[in-house]
Formats: sequence, structure tokens, C-alpha cells
Amino acid sequence: MNKPSSRPESRCNALAQRYGMNARPDIGPWNDHIELLLSHRSIRSYRSDPVPEGTLETLVAAAQSAATSSNMQLWSVIVIDNPDTRDELAKVAGNQDHIRQCPLYMVWLTDLSRNQRLCTEEGVEMESIPYVETFLVASVDAALAAQNAVTAAESLGLSTVYIGAMRNDPARVAELLGLPAGVFGLFGLCVGYAAPKATNQVKPRLPQGVVVHRETYGSPQEQGIRARYDDLMTDFSRRNEMVEQSWTTKVLGRMGKLAGMNGRETLSTVLHRLGFRLQ
Amino acid sequence: MNKPSSRPESRCNALAQRYGMNARPDIGPWNDHIELLLSHRSIRSYRSDPVPEGTLETLVAAAQSAATSSNMQLWSVIVIDNPDTRDELAKVAGNQDHIRQCPLYMVWLTDLSRNQRLCTEEGVEMESIPYVETFLVASVDAALAAQNAVTAAESLGLSTVYIGAMRNDPARVAELLGLPAGVFGLFGLCVGYAAPKATNQVKPRLPQGVVVHRETYGSPQEQGIRARYDDLMTDFSRRNEMVEQSWTTKVLGRMGKLAGMNGRETLSTVLHRLGFRLQ
Repeated sequence: MNKPSSRPESRCNALAQRYGMNARPDIGPWNDHIELLLSHRSIRSYRSDPVPEGTLETLVAAAQSAATSSNMQLWSVIVIDNPDTRDELAKVAGNQDHIRQCPLYMVWLTDLSRNQRLCTEEGVEMESIPYVETFLVASVDAALAAQNAVTAAESLGLSTVYIGAMRNDPARVAELLGLPAGVFGLFGLCVGYAAPKATNQVKPRLPQGVVVHRETYGSPQEQGIRARYDDLMTDFSRRNEMVEQSWTTKVLGRMGKLAGMNGRETLSTVLHRLGFRLQ
Repeated sequence: MNKPSSRPESRCNALAQRYGMNARPDIGPWNDHIELLLSHRSIRSYRSDPVPEGTLETLVAAAQSAATSSNMQLWSVIVIDNPDTRDELAKVAGNQDHIRQCPLYMVWLTDLSRNQRLCTEEGVEMESIPYVETFLVASVDAALAAQNAVTAAESLGLSTVYIGAMRNDPARVAELLGLPAGVFGLFGLCVGYAAPKATNQVKPRLPQGVVVHRETYGSPQEQGIRARYDDLMTDFSRRNEMVEQSWTTKVLGRMGKLAGMNGRETLSTVLHRLGFRLQ
């Protein structure tokens, strides 16, 4: 489905926003679809306006159109409207108020239980259940699906933000949503119209040179590239996040100390309780 | 970025192909982006024509534009052109010949090592490394990114197929690609122009009623819906896969017996050896 190319300047701008002026990759093929993908920003403040009728069905159709390993379709999604449940889910996520505020809130589920029910009905033991691979393939299925829903939402002028912090307390999420064994709230997703105050820019990413490898793993320029990306992100955070912080500082804060995991270091134990043995 | 709606009949056709005529969801908002997402088919036979110059850069820019947890960017991608490496990777994947054949083959990596190098350079121990959560968040990052690359590729008239079978032997993949500790080949992705013989139709998915839940988990009609989906998939497999097989039969074959896992039941042990302690 080729589309007419966008104007060269919009292509150039999109790449400059995503990588900074000095780290833009060579310009490749381009169209409106790619421009939509490049324009992604996570939005954490929403207007109260509802999403148009039928939006959920469209987003789910897009999500189900993503690839799924061997067509196993090992995911589900729950839509939560009840304000009390929203409030409890927001508390799980460190009081992220956009969970209460957005018109459409979905929790995407790693779901082995549907196919396990199928096996039980057919009188077959589902031998693949206790393995890390099965948990992983199901979680990847859910992520591919959700990303298609995000693209569909953004194409409709809606904004989104993933809520990984559902994993701060997956047992509480399972309790609130009545999840059976073998179902896990992988992440949440807020969908709605961005509030006027949500003015954050497109966030720059690492230059392609440290993310793309050829034939074997390795990027000799990694250290030099990181120093320049730190400068770019320090500038970005000053303009957008009311805090001046390099990428290195942010990564050290999030990954260096256990405290940065917000309790998620217990995930293995919690997953066992939820029916994932991860062997 | 609202686009003019496509013609009603193409919208109706897209939903009928994805769900069958009798299980189409209510028609919601629609545009060319959503139509592109709905049209996805995995393609397993490619023409030898190269992809246009700059395609890789465009796909990676789309991939990097996907959300990434706390901007940690815990993924990388390796492009493999060497025919000998391609051949070995095809062998890992049960001799899937499209891995040898496609003009662009990428292996998407769960990558904790880049940020670990950053911590090491800064003299900080990276305490989050050994946890399941960190492996999971990185794998989800990689999946979100890859799905954007797929959408970008398909918008350019290219086709794709994910290769989950890289996980049949992740240690061999790590050896072939020179992966350092903390890096894991999550899946491969073939990209190229579909061969004329690649005529498979859009694959129908489960009706939305068993995938979407409201407020709490549960779909009372699950059993009846599965019987109808079995009929749809039996018909689809007869027309497209030269084998007549219901969805139930396929799931039982893939998930019921350990043999359906193609060796992936050892993933936990292999991941330990690759530097993921999954605690």
C-alpha cells in the first residue's frame, strides 16, 4: 500500500525531532504511515471527552491483526470504566492520575487461560503451560497487539501512554480484575484526547548507530555517541520535564538500584502465585 | 492525524476477512492507517529483489519511535546479510527457507548489555539485571519496536514474517551473532517483496467477544464462539495451508504436548547461560 511521499521538509523535521539535528539517519523511503509512527509521543494528561463510538472495536481489530505466534492468540484485554477500579489501579501505579482521567483505559493481559480451558474441555493436559517460553510468547503476542492498537489510536487523533506500573503489584491487579490462573496484567494503556497542557515534544532516541548492528553484535562508537545523546536528553528534559537530567543519570536511577524497580523485583514470586511457573 | 475515511465497502471487507462475515464487530472509526493494519498477512516466500535504499533506516526510525519503558531502550537489532549465517539461522528455525531468501533479515534482541556497559563505565553496579521484570520489560520494548517496523515495512508494499523459531536454539543464535551476556535473540523478522506464489489470505482471528473483557475477566459465550471459529479456521486452512485443521486441533498440537515446543522448554536454562538469571 504505497502512499504519496510527504513533503521532504516534514520528513526531515520528523527525523530531526526523533534523533536531534546532528544524529539524523540517512533519509529513506517515506509516507504518511511512517510519518504517523515517527510522530508518537506518550501523553499523560487527557481531556474528559469520550472517544468516538466504535473506537474500542476498531482498536481491537487492529490489535488482533498483528502477528501472533502459531495463531495461538495468547492475549486478552480488559476495559475498565468503573471509577473505583480505576482509582485502585491508579494507586497500584504510583497514583498516575491519567489512569483515572482518560476516557478509555485498557489492561493488556498475557493470557494462557483461554487456551488452557480449550485443552481442559478437550480432555488434554496442556504440557507447555509451566515454561518461560510460553509466558514469553504470550507476552510478546500481547505487546505486538497493543502496539497496533496504539498506532490505530494515534491515526484517529487520539493519544496514548503505556502503564508498565501495573506490574508494581500484579497480584492486586489480578484481584481487582478477577483474573483466573494463567492470566497476568502485562501493562495498561490510557487512550484519549491530549489535554491542552500536554505539550511535551517528541522524545529523542539513541542514534541508530548504537541500536543497529551488522552481522555480529558490536558498535565501536558507543561511548562517544552516548555522550552526545546525554547532551540532547539533558536539553530535552529541561524543556519538557521540569528537571534537567542526562540519559545516563536517568538509566542509573532506574536500573542501578533496586529501589528504581518500584517493587517489581518480586515479579518472579508473584508470577508463580498467578500460575506461571517459569521453568 | 485524521485521514479521509476509506470507502465503506473496503472497511466492511477488511473486517469480514479478519473475523469472517458472521463475527464482524460493529464498524467503528476508520482510515487508511487502520486499513493498512487490518490487511496484515505473514508472508513466507519472497522475491529476490532488494528493498529500496534507506529502507532499513526508515524501519529502525519507526521502531525507535515506539514507546520504551522509562526511555531505557533495552533492545537492539542485528541485520544479517552473510549467506552462511543466514543458512545457519535457517537451520535453527527448522529450515525455514524464507530466512535464506528474503532480502532483509533482522534479529531483534532483548538487550540489557548496552545499559550494563553504561553502568560499568560509570562505576555503578546494575542491581536490576538478574530479575524477571528486567528481562520482560526489555523483551516488551523489543516487541513494540519490531511491530512498528512491521507496520512501516507493510506501508512501503513490503511483506514480513516474524521468526519465533530463533528461540529453538538461542545459544546457537548467540554464538552465530556474537551476542555478549545479557543479550538474547527474541525473534527474527523477514522483510521483502512477497513472491507471486505467496497468495495466502488474511487469517481470521477469534471474535472480539472472547478477547475483550469488561471490568472483570470472563466471557460466558466462549465455548459456542470457539466452535464457530473452528469452522472458520478449518475452511481457511483448507483454502490456504493445504491441510484441513481446526483451530482447536492446531492449539492442542502446539500447546498440548512438549514436542510442540520444538526444544523451547529449555529456554529458562539457556537464558541463565546467556546472562539472564530470571529471579
